[in-house]
Order: sequence, then structure tokens, then C-alpha cells
Amino acid sequence: MEAKLKELKTYLVEVDDLHSAAALLYWDQSTYMPSGGAAARARQTATLSRLAHEKFTAPALGRLLDILQPYEEQLPYDSDDASLIRVTRREYERAIKVPPAFMQKLYSHASESYQVWTEARPANDFTMVKPYLEETLTMSRQLAEFFPGYEHIADPLIDFSDYGMKASDVRRIFSELRTRLVPIVDAITVQSPADDSCLHQTFSEEQQLKFGIETIKCLGYDFERGRQDKTHHPFMTKFSLGDVRITTRSKEDDLSDALFSTMHEAGHGMYEQGIRMEFDGTPLANGTSSGVHESQSRLWENVVGRSRRFWSCFYPKLQAEFTNQLGTVSLETFYRAINKVEKSLIRTDADEVTYNLHVLLRFDLELDLLEGTLTVADLPESWRERFQTDFGIVPPDDRDGVLQDVHWYSGPIGGAFQGYTLGNILGAQFFESALDSHPEILSEIETGEFGTLHGWLRENIYQHGSKFTASELVQRVTGSSLRIEPYISYLRQKYGELYELPPEESLMKEVD
Amino acid sequence: MEAKLKELKTYLVEVDDLHSAAALLYWDQSTYMPSGGAAARARQTATLSRLAHEKFTAPALGRLLDILQPYEEQLPYDSDDASLIRVTRREYERAIKVPPAFMQKLYSHASESYQVWTEARPANDFTMVKPYLEETLTMSRQLAEFFPGYEHIADPLIDFSDYGMKASDVRRIFSELRTRLVPIVDAITVQSPADDSCLHQTFSEEQQLKFGIETIKCLGYDFERGRQDKTHHPFMTKFSLGDVRITTRSKEDDLSDALFSTMHEAGHGMYEQGIRMEFDGTPLANGTSSGVHESQSRLWENVVGRSRRFWSCFYPKLQAEFTNQLGTVSLETFYRAINKVEKSLIRTDADEVTYNLHVLLRFDLELDLLEGTLTVADLPESWRERFQTDFGIVPPDDRDGVLQDVHWYSGPIGGAFQGYTLGNILGAQFFESALDSHPEILSEIETGEFGTLHGWLRENIYQHGSKFTASELVQRVTGSSLRIEPYISYLRQKYGELYELPPEESLMKEVD
Repeated sequence: MEAKLKELKTYLVEVDDLHSAAALLYWDQSTYMPSGGAAARARQTATLSRLAHEKFTAPALGRLLDILQPYEEQLPYDSDDASLIRVTRREYERAIKVPPAFMQKLYSHASESYQVWTEARPANDFTMVKPYLEETLTMSRQLAEFFPGYEHIADPLIDFSDYGMKASDVRRIFSELRTRLVPIVDAITVQSPADDSCLHQTFSEEQQLKFGIETIKCLGYDFERGRQDKTHHPFMTKFSLGDVRITTRSKEDDLSDALFSTMHEAGHGMYEQGIRMEFDGTPLANGTSSGVHESQSRLWENVVGRSRRFWSCFYPKLQAEFTNQLGTVSLETFYRAINKVEKSLIRTDADEVTYNLHVLLRFDLELDLLEGTLTVADLPESWRERFQTDFGIVPPDDRDGVLQDVHWYSGPIGGAFQGYTLGNILGAQFFESALDSHPEILSEIETGEFGTLHGWLRENIYQHGSKFTASELVQRVTGSSLRIEPYISYLRQKYGELYELPPEESLMKEVD
Repeated sequence: MEAKLKELKTYLVEVDDLHSAAALLYWDQSTYMPSGGAAARARQTATLSRLAHEKFTAPALGRLLDILQPYEEQLPYDSDDASLIRVTRREYERAIKVPPAFMQKLYSHASESYQVWTEARPANDFTMVKPYLEETLTMSRQLAEFFPGYEHIADPLIDFSDYGMKASDVRRIFSELRTRLVPIVDAITVQSPADDSCLHQTFSEEQQLKFGIETIKCLGYDFERGRQDKTHHPFMTKFSLGDVRITTRSKEDDLSDALFSTMHEAGHGMYEQGIRMEFDGTPLANGTSSGVHESQSRLWENVVGRSRRFWSCFYPKLQAEFTNQLGTVSLETFYRAINKVEKSLIRTDADEVTYNLHVLLRFDLELDLLEGTLTVADLPESWRERFQTDFGIVPPDDRDGVLQDVHWYSGPIGGAFQGYTLGNILGAQFFESALDSHPEILSEIETGEFGTLHGWLRENIYQHGSKFTASELVQRVTGSSLRIEPYISYLRQKYGELYELPPEESLMKEVD
């Protein structure tokens, strides 16, 4: 059995080598590739992904897993070996349902579509991407059809990123969230908005990136095992557990863009850098779900990175870097500026409170598209209408409307967005548990120390990779299943200091 | 047959996708990869290279080539289709002689060895690389043994990079070259050396790279289909004909280092950028030999880039970039500085006249190592002795001695160096032919115009990729086989203006 297990690992590492090479092809395409490389790159990424898929779905792997089943059954559920066999089998059984030729077509299409989007967005031209998006929708539905027996056509797609979740689960959670969130949003946005003009001066890209890098080094992102580069739409990617990279972008007239995007991606990166090296090259060496992944990016970006305690330590450093711009701006003004709540256009720039409304909008549009109640042709208009309903404003163009996110233009529709909001909810829940064990975390943040928090997260979440499912992990770490309460209570406490909020009780009564 | 030909192309493109991904893994390792990625990267490169090799050596390809043979025979020799089948068969028949497991071991070893070298060279520590180099030598011999029937054990290894050449051919050419070159070197190096202190001031890296990029844009390197990044040891690489990249390095106290390395690599890049797009993804989409490749890098770097005509146009631009350093330095002083001839330590920094002595030294040591008359343990000492004989100086350390070149530490020993000198010879021969057709090239260079020269090279050399062998190409383009005469005459004319040289006749007599 030892020999068979070794055989399994060797086999999986080869699959991972192909995936890692494909990931590098994508990273390069998104950071440094000259435009002339685009056509071949789409094909190359498709070929590598197909070969990985072919290898991962070969009957040889199925036989190996069958042979190993009795061994798995005699091991404790949470042993590394049992977990490797179990998680590999789960992914294998999912993967064999999708024909390799389909995967190749999907990847190739996604790569071309992404390239077109990088031109269409600055050109504010939805018609450029429309045929690509229509094909994406068709292929997303086809992808779901490989998993018959679903409740909702989005279920298999959600399952890819948030294993075990169904559209109905997400709808239920999002519905409760909306009920408790909207009164907060409404209460805040009728009050006079914070003055964030201090963030909208001119800040050189070089200084912004330098400050961002210094900051995430303090948080614990390891530059010996990662790096940061510039791109259109920031992302994290991994070529091995020793090489977990992040990307960022900056705006000269918006200090918050690069800064919080960098902390966000560093959160993702620290999660994967924290996975145990023994898992490298296997299916265990990934974050366990989109929601848990986002819980880490949003925890470091928001719960830590937009907290008053954090900036009581880091603001003097920021002032020292940008003396001309921030020398006379008080910490309180800056703190209110980075936590300004407003109904705005761009999801990735949105504050913590309204952010989820952006996600809920996208999630609902995804379900409508997949159900066929909305066509791609009508999507820009539907976006505008829904935006007006939820935010009271109409996007002036598609660039900052339906074209703003890379997701639909670089992968399937369905399952791409719910993780962000699940992450907000889980981030608060995890942070609450961390504080229960280590109340000193709060005072440490005030002194720029993150070791206790980082250590707790690594110990309880990061090291396990995808050994446990999201729901198993949440249960293990917090002693309960996903709960909205810690998130609402976090928002109420933080924003209750900054704005007049109606008491929760009265809200609940109104809802009843 | 059309269908079978299409099948062949599809097959070859998939092999190329794997090679391109492996090339990207290497490019990334050499430019941006954090140190933590090294261990997995060695394995990943090995896996991709092995998969490419397995696919290229599969019997399915052999059968396809057999089926296509009658079709090839009825086509003209120089038709694209016949050339594709012919060149693919030649490479297939070579590739099937080497077992895939061996290739994987070789690539994996090369990647690890390279990583160690990047630390050993700055540390001036040959003992770090010694065990790796010993293994490299063993594997180089094993590689040669897969091609029994050779005259000299280096022949199969030379054949990889300069198809059709044998150790004895190279020895004969190098022996004639040495006979005619050494008197020139000796005559020049007893005269007072040029003052190159103007090159050894402080030049910011940023400005150096900027000037280099502007310069190679003028030469014709296409940044829409390429880019330049920093590395330890500059190289050119290709991920498709639309993405041909170069790398460079700079020294703040040596203006010539980055500048000429950039022009050198741009020459390689322009060669591959000039290959017809129809060949993309096939074995035709490469330079035809190491010698012809180097002929282009050396032609652009030296014949053009170190000429008086070139700098009569570009020196004012360089002065404008570096006013403080070069404002008062005359063109003549600068021209003499960049063409200073001296017996020096570093091959890549060497002037055109002594450069070949560096190559001849390495070529002879390679043959000694492969023959077994020299051990790796004795190599540093042998290097020092031979260096003293040829250059009259002893390298003060291994860093600038046996550790200076990446080649032996990142690939097989044998066949790695002869191409540089063959390139010097061929570059002059090609340039002579270009001038025969277009004498106006000289005056165009004086006005910063390179279109006629670039066009002639593209038309006669670049576009063909590896459709013709090096010897076929030289014959087609220059009407004769490789000749040393144009190179010697180029050197005598250029350096005869700068130094007193003895007449060639008397030298020839002495040799007789």
C-alpha cells in the first residue's frame, strides 16, 4: 500500500506540474506577455489544461484510487493519507464527468475572451465581448449538464468553487444577509458621507507599490516564496507552495486602490503559503473553497487592514511616505476616508458595507442567465436596472458596469461571485474565534504585530489546505456552521462608531 | 495527404505547446521566480520537457512521417511542406535515439545545476558546482553514446546545435582561424591600449536599459512581439513567433555591458521574429543552427553596433542621455573605447578580436573533458593554465574563470561554444553578401536606417527558419560554403584603422 500511495503521489505531482505550467502561462499573459503572444498563448494554455485534465481523468488514476480505498478506510478520517485519497477521489469523480475536448474548448475560449476583454473594457465596448460572453454562457450551461440531477443549473458550477453549496443555500444565506444589511446601508447612506478627498490626491505608483510591499511583509506574506507584479485585475496564483504570487494595480489618484488590493491578495497568498509543504503538488495543496479563501483575503484587507487599531500603527508610516499629501491629514480623517460608505459603481473599490450588494447583484444575474430568463444581449440593460434598484444610481457606461469584473470574461458564468460574500461572513466568524482564543490579537495589531493572528490562522486553517471541506473546517474552527451573526455584529460595532445606526431589534421587528 | 499533413501539423503544435511552456518555466526561473520556487521548478521543467520528448518520439509520429514520405518526394525540396516533413523526420530520428527517462533526468539535473551555479558564481565557489558538473559530464557522454558510430564523442553533441558539423570540421576551421587571428591579436596587444575610462563611470541602470531599448527598436526588434527583462546571464527565448523575448543585465560602472548584450540578444530575437508565421509551432520555426543564430547576434552587436558609422548617428543620442558622463567625450574616444582590444577575463565582455580565443579555449576543454583526458576536478587548474598560455594572464578567481559562463551549468558539455565563433565568421560572410547586393547599407547605417539590411537578412535568412541547413543556407545566400576570409578581412580593415597591423602576406609566409 505504501508503494501504491507513492505511485498516487507521483501521478498527482505530474498532473500538478501541468497545472502549474498552465498557471504560469496565465500569470505571464496577465502581467508581462507582449500582445503578439496572445494567439499562441490561448492555444498553449488550452493544451496544457487539456493534458492535465486527460491525465487526471485517466482510468489508471481511478484504478489506483480503488486499490487504495481499503487502506483509506482503515485510517483516521483526518489523517494526511486518508485525506489525500478522499479529496483526490472526490475531484476525480467530478473531473471524469467532463470530456477533455470540452475542457480544452472552454479554456481556449476563456483565454481568447480574456484578451478581448482587456481591450473592450478600456474601449467601453460591450459589443466586442458579447459574442464571447454568449459562447461562455452556452458552455457554462453545457458544463452544468455534465452533472445531471442538480436542483438548480447553477449548483454544479457553485460546487466547483464552494463544494457542498447549492444555489438554494446561497440564496437563503444571501436573503438573510440582505434583510439585515440593507437597513444598515440605508441608515448610513442618508447621513453625510465621509470626506475621502485625502485619498484622491496624486500618489506615485512607485511609492504606492513600495508601501504596499512593506505592509504585507509586516502582515506575514513571504517574499522568499512569492512576489508581486502589476496586472489589469489583481489575482493570486501558485506555481508550487514555494512560489505563491500576487498581482496588483494602482491608480495615481486613488491611494486606496493598490493598497487594499495588495492586502487582499496577500491574504489569499498567506493562506496558500501556509499550507503544509508535504501537500505540495497534490490536490490538498489548495485553499478548500472560494468562500474560505475570500474569508482570508477579506479578513486581512478589511477586518485587519481597515481597522482603527491597524492604522494607529501604520498611518505614521504612510504619512512619512507621503508627507506632502498626508502630512496634515489626521488619523481620524484618514480612517473615516478608507471606511467611507457610499453606493458606488465598482465592486473592488466598494466599502465593506455596500460590497455585498455588488455580489448579490452579480449572483442573481448569474442565476438569471443560467436559467435563461436573461439573455447576454439584455445583460447590460439588466445590470443598469438592477443597479438602480439596489444602489439608486445608474452606471454611466458599461466600462464601470457590466464590463468591470474579469470573471465572466475569463471563465464560466455561475459560481464566480458568491465566494466573496461567503468570505466576508466567514472572515468575521473566524476572527471572532481567533479573538476568543487570543484576545491580545487586538492590542498586537495596534503595535504592528500580526504573529499571533497569523499563527492562529495558519494552525487552524491554512496548514490544512483542502484536507477538510469548508463546512467541516468552519465547524472544527468555530464550533458551529456558517453564521451571519459575527459579521453583522462586526459591521454594527465598527460602523456604529462612525454613523448613527438603528438598533438591530427594531430592524428585526420591522422585518418580521 | 492534405489531411495527413494537417494531422502532422496539429501533432507538432501540441509538442511545441509543451516546449513553449517549458521555455516559459525557464524564462521565469531566470527573471522573476522567487527562490522558494526553485525545487518545484526543476521538477516542473523536467516533466514538461519529458512529456514533449515522449510525444515527439511516439511511434505515431514515425508512422505519420512514413505515410507522408511519398508526398514529400513529389514536392520540390524547398517547398514548405517538403521541408516540414524532412526537418521533422531528421529531428524525430535523432530524438528517438534518446530514452525519455534520460532526457527527464538531464533536464531535471540541468535545472538544479543552474540554480546552484547562480549561487556558486557570486560565492566564487567551484566546489559547490563540482558534483553537478561531474554528473553533467557523465550524462553528456551518455547522451553521445546514444549515437554510436561517431568519429569523435563530441560529434553528436555538436550536431545538436550545429547540424552537420563534426569536431574535426570545427577543429580545422578553428585551426585556420587561430593561425590568422593570433598575429592580429599579438600585434594589437603590444601597442598602447585604447582608453576606455569613459565607459567606466556611473551610469544608472534605468537609463542604460532605456537607451538599449530605444536602440534595438531602431534596429528592428519588435516590442509588440517581444520584451526585455533582467537576468543573470542574458539569453533569447521564444514562446511563439509572436512572443520572442530577450533578457539583459547591467553594470552601473560599465556602460558597454548592457548595451552590447542588448544588441546581441536583439539580433537573436530579430532572427526568430523574422521567421514566417506559417511555421509557428513547428520544427521549422527555429533558427537553423547555433552558428547561424550567432551570426545574427554578432552581426547586429559588432558589425553594425560597434561600427564607426553606427555611432556617428547614435553617439549624439547617447551623449544626450548621459550628458554628465559623456558630454565632453569625443566620438573618436568613445569609438576606440568600445573597440578596445585587450586580453581580458570575460568572454561576453571581450572585444571582437580576442573573443574567439575565449571560444577556442572552451571548445578545446570541452573536447578534453569528453575524451576523458581532463577531469572536472582538474578543470579550474586547466582553465587557468590554458588561459595563461592564450592570454598571458591568470584568472584571479574561478568566478571570472571557469564559473563565468552559464552553459556547462545548465546543459550538456559539448557543442555549447563553437557556434559563437562560427557565428563571427558567418556574420561577416553574410554581411559581405548583403553589401554586394545593397552597397547603400553602409550609408544607411550612418543615418540610423536599418531597413535595407534588416529586410535583406529577413528575406535571405530569417524567414526560412530551419527550412535549410546551415551549410545549405550559406551556399544559397553567399554562393559558397563557410569562408574565413570575409571575417579576417573585416577585422583587418576595421582594426587596421585603429592599430598598426602586419600585412597578411608576411603572416601567411610565417605560417607556411
